[in-house]
Amino acid sequence: MAGSKFAYVRNFELPDPLLPGTFMVLRIDGHAFHRLSEEHNFMKPNDERALQLMDHAARDVMNEFKDIVLAFGESDEYSFLFRRSASLYNRREAKILTTVTSLFTSSYVFNWSKYLSDTPLKYCPSFDGRIVLYPSPSVVRDYFSWRQADTHINNLYNTVFWALVLQGGQTTTEAHATLRGTVSSQKHEILFSRFGINYNELPARFRKGSVLVREEVSDAVETGDAPQADQAISTPTGEPASVSDKKAQKKPRVRTTVELYHFDIIGDEFWDGHSNILADS
Amino acid sequence: MAGSKFAYVRNFELPDPLLPGTFMVLRIDGHAFHRLSEEHNFMKPNDERALQLMDHAARDVMNEFKDIVLAFGESDEYSFLFRRSASLYNRREAKILTTVTSLFTSSYVFNWSKYLSDTPLKYCPSFDGRIVLYPSPSVVRDYFSWRQADTHINNLYNTVFWALVLQGGQTTTEAHATLRGTVSSQKHEILFSRFGINYNELPARFRKGSVLVREEVSDAVETGDAPQADQAISTPTGEPASVSDKKAQKKPRVRTTVELYHFDIIGDEFWDGHSNILADS
Amino acid sequence: MAGSKFAYVRNFELPDPLLPGTFMVLRIDGHAFHRLSEEHNFMKPNDERALQLMDHAARDVMNEFKDIVLAFGESDEYSFLFRRSASLYNRREAKILTTVTSLFTSSYVFNWSKYLSDTPLKYCPSFDGRIVLYPSPSVVRDYFSWRQADTHINNLYNTVFWALVLQGGQTTTEAHATLRGTVSSQKHEILFSRFGINYNELPARFRKGSVLVREEVSDAVETGDAPQADQAISTPTGEPASVSDKKAQKKPRVRTTVELYHFDIIGDEFWDGHSNILADS
Amino acid sequence: MAGSKFAYVRNFELPDPLLPGTFMVLRIDGHAFHRLSEEHNFMKPNDERALQLMDHAARDVMNEFKDIVLAFGESDEYSFLFRRSASLYNRREAKILTTVTSLFTSSYVFNWSKYLSDTPLKYCPSFDGRIVLYPSPSVVRDYFSWRQADTHINNLYNTVFWALVLQGGQTTTEAHATLRGTVSSQKHEILFSRFGINYNELPARFRKGSVLVREEVSDAVETGDAPQADQAISTPTGEPASVSDKKAQKKPRVRTTVELYHFDIIGDEFWDGHSNILADS
Repeated sequence: MAGSKFAYVRNFELPDPLLPGTFMVLRIDGHAFHRLSEEHNFMKPNDERALQLMDHAARDVMNEFKDIVLAFGESDEYSFLFRRSASLYNRREAKILTTVTSLFTSSYVFNWSKYLSDTPLKYCPSFDGRIVLYPSPSVVRDYFSWRQADTHINNLYNTVFWALVLQGGQTTTEAHATLRGTVSSQKHEILFSRFGINYNELPARFRKGSVLVREEVSDAVETGDAPQADQAISTPTGEPASVSDKKAQKKPRVRTTVELYHFDIIGDEFWDGHSNILADS
Repeated sequence: MAGSKFAYVRNFELPDPLLPGTFMVLRIDGHAFHRLSEEHNFMKPNDERALQLMDHAARDVMNEFKDIVLAFGESDEYSFLFRRSASLYNRREAKILTTVTSLFTSSYVFNWSKYLSDTPLKYCPSFDGRIVLYPSPSVVRDYFSWRQADTHINNLYNTVFWALVLQGGQTTTEAHATLRGTVSSQKHEILFSRFGINYNELPARFRKGSVLVREEVSDAVETGDAPQADQAISTPTGEPASVSDKKAQKKPRVRTTVELYHFDIIGDEFWDGHSNILADS
Repeated sequence: MAGSKFAYVRNFELPDPLLPGTFMVLRIDGHAFHRLSEEHNFMKPNDERALQLMDHAARDVMNEFKDIVLAFGESDEYSFLFRRSASLYNRREAKILTTVTSLFTSSYVFNWSKYLSDTPLKYCPSFDGRIVLYPSPSVVRDYFSWRQADTHINNLYNTVFWALVLQGGQTTTEAHATLRGTVSSQKHEILFSRFGINYNELPARFRKGSVLVREEVSDAVETGDAPQADQAISTPTGEPASVSDKKAQKKPRVRTTVELYHFDIIGDEFWDGHSNILADS
Repeated sequence: MAGSKFAYVRNFELPDPLLPGTFMVLRIDGHAFHRLSEEHNFMKPNDERALQLMDHAARDVMNEFKDIVLAFGESDEYSFLFRRSASLYNRREAKILTTVTSLFTSSYVFNWSKYLSDTPLKYCPSFDGRIVLYPSPSVVRDYFSWRQADTHINNLYNTVFWALVLQGGQTTTEAHATLRGTVSSQKHEILFSRFGINYNELPARFRKGSVLVREEVSDAVETGDAPQADQAISTPTGEPASVSDKKAQKKPRVRTTVELYHFDIIGDEFWDGHSNILADS
């Protein structure tokens, strides 16, 4: 890139390293997805195909970036947690942020037709992203609790709202009015008494969001035993080494797959069973 | 996004405004495009279809972000210049950086099949991006001169290199050896004497890169006169207003189209003819 | 600083370079100077001795940092302008910011007794500082206009206020009430009609603040001609070279002194006569 | 500060909050103290009066900023640790950095004559400062271990060096040559065999540096019992409330004093006995 008298302009490129020893959380959000869902007739309140497409894109990101140890998705957003000691791209913020956001976007467009096969993509969807640093394991847990609590709050509201509209015949304005000021238990009651819906029996995907975790694979699993996660496709990293795992390849590697779950991550059980996620290295 | 005791984690999201009164240049680069071009059999030294796809993605970005007044592309990179007074997203760095990089990526994947119709995309291409601030018009000009000089240097080298390999029968190692230490005039000479190629007669797209500029449209043009740019598709902004141009819509708007050129932007002529690009507002 | 297994902690020291090609303005403000002025019986509305002490500290800063081309002071604050191409300490923000703020503070305490000889300093005064980047000459001028306009507004208010209190016998509450809602001309009128004070005849120091400029010295001046500035002490830089001017010493140096003025810097005259201040290098 | 058409220049003042939940360490270093010590005839290898002056300045800083829970000083530097949840000045970096550095400087100059009474200060000493964020208690401990290990390494070298020069009659060049390549045990041996000095019996202040800690005061101490720290002057915070402790004053406050020690802070004992220093709030 050098070689000319103009090359001095590179001096304006300033360094942007992220503080070492902190957990990076990179959150991606759909840009104007309200319109996107309208124009592509996403089902209300949740379109499982669109959510599966998000999960697919997130999985592609995790397969490429080995420093990501956990991801959580809901609606049109996905959060990725990098292990504390991650040193990819020397922790340069713009490089990490854009490469991950770009790959996620690419996968979303690339795989659209696999999930919404009868709904051609009409225009280019896009996402924004940000990196937030969290200095301690406890605040990382609170971050993911915040997102899963948000999933619950939004999904309960949306479920009742669309039941009122689609089954109850209310306008959207009326449905909002019906829900104004109601607390959680009242929303459950409306769902059950008017529509015979037991909220807690709705699919866990909608109520809990999507959790992607890197799990070690034993030989038994590789030779065909049934895995527990709902999407059992193991994804060995057969692709050429990316920047982020060159080191890892030097030592014999434990095979891992990225598994998808829809369970609680607010309580201790998940974290106790995956203590490596918040470990120091 | 609020509503729970965990919402305090938002306090860790720090502001990242870019210095006002400066020109932002956002440069996007292909991630691992050497491999991408190999796996999809891009033509050497230049694949016009792949370059046109880059131009298409850049045009989509400019149609969405009205604050971008100039773009320059070569190979697998594209640089976007925002007008000095741009205030989109309150100049928040991560928001601007990721939204633009994501839209570019999305368009690249979305439109791939239009340009490389007989070469199905095998996996997800991705890009990285960065924003660099330039405080004065003169250094902005030097930035774009730097990129166009780079285009020239790389293209001359690659043109001779691939002539030696594809027509001259050299191995790639031999071709690099042949070129080692040669200056520009020697490369011209090799091209001409051995392969009968006059470098200066090669397509301007390869020698000069791609320049995208927003040009005002007179009524005559709208009703069918032939425009001068090589890709004459006018692109009125018929899409719903994006964040970046809500203000603009309030006043009667001069219609503009984004035009593509392959000409010199190092000399004064281009800038004299487009003085609005470096204007203060 | 190395030599132990703990030295890795230096990795947490992140770079903080300031954008090249911009004008740095470093503004220092007195910390809790309301109390300081009370406890040391500063005269109201202005204590010339205290202002002279501020000027002295600012001059010491300019004599040490040759990249500073202009300073403006009023009340308990001082702003320093660095030339656009300043590269001291590789433009590291914290280094520049703290070294200048520290030297200013040091000089203020060190020289206190020269100006307030009969008022011993009772405790440690301190200052805060910040650096703001301005990308163009015109906004730099607006910055200094902002400060001088502020000087005028504050001084006019304070002059009438303290006349009402000290000569007019009002309480401070009454004086604020008298001034509430008054415009500039009314304040002038109160001063003149009640106290016989023509505001425009008050010392320029109080009305215009202090302007420190580096002026070239001709030989004639050195051998004894009367300079025009109100504080004529020439201050050749006889001290050992500081970091900031090591380069300058290699070439024959034009002798300069830092001169103090109390004149208008909002209009063009000052800037036309000192065009080097906003020059590119 | 508003009130004029120029006030827009404030828009160039960008926010600079420090990441919450991290430990700030603010380190102050003497600027050109080699020259300062020469010009004021500091004793070699250590001038106890100058070190006491540093301690005094650091104590003044701790008395003003209640969020500082630990300070460590050696030679011409001092490091201040803020408690993890410190929120002074909304964690604005420049404000914290400059106010502390300025107060330290002010105290150093203000109190000079108390410690170096027969050596008038010839010119203005100054300091630079920086803030480094550490995300976890363990790395904070490693930071302070790094500084105390540095104290030991430097002091051992300097002690032997100056013994060779002042008592052994070597030139400084010869003394450096004598020490080149020697390890710690050899330096101890030189000191003992040639000069009869048992390094471990030298004053702890020189070997361990200065540790300032906020200790709770029991009534017994207040009424006159002998405290254990070597500088027994209790420093109740009788001064008007500073910004940093306005909140604290609302609840009944445990009286604390800042105590000075010269003991080991690398091992566990100190930290076990002062667990509040690294606590979360």
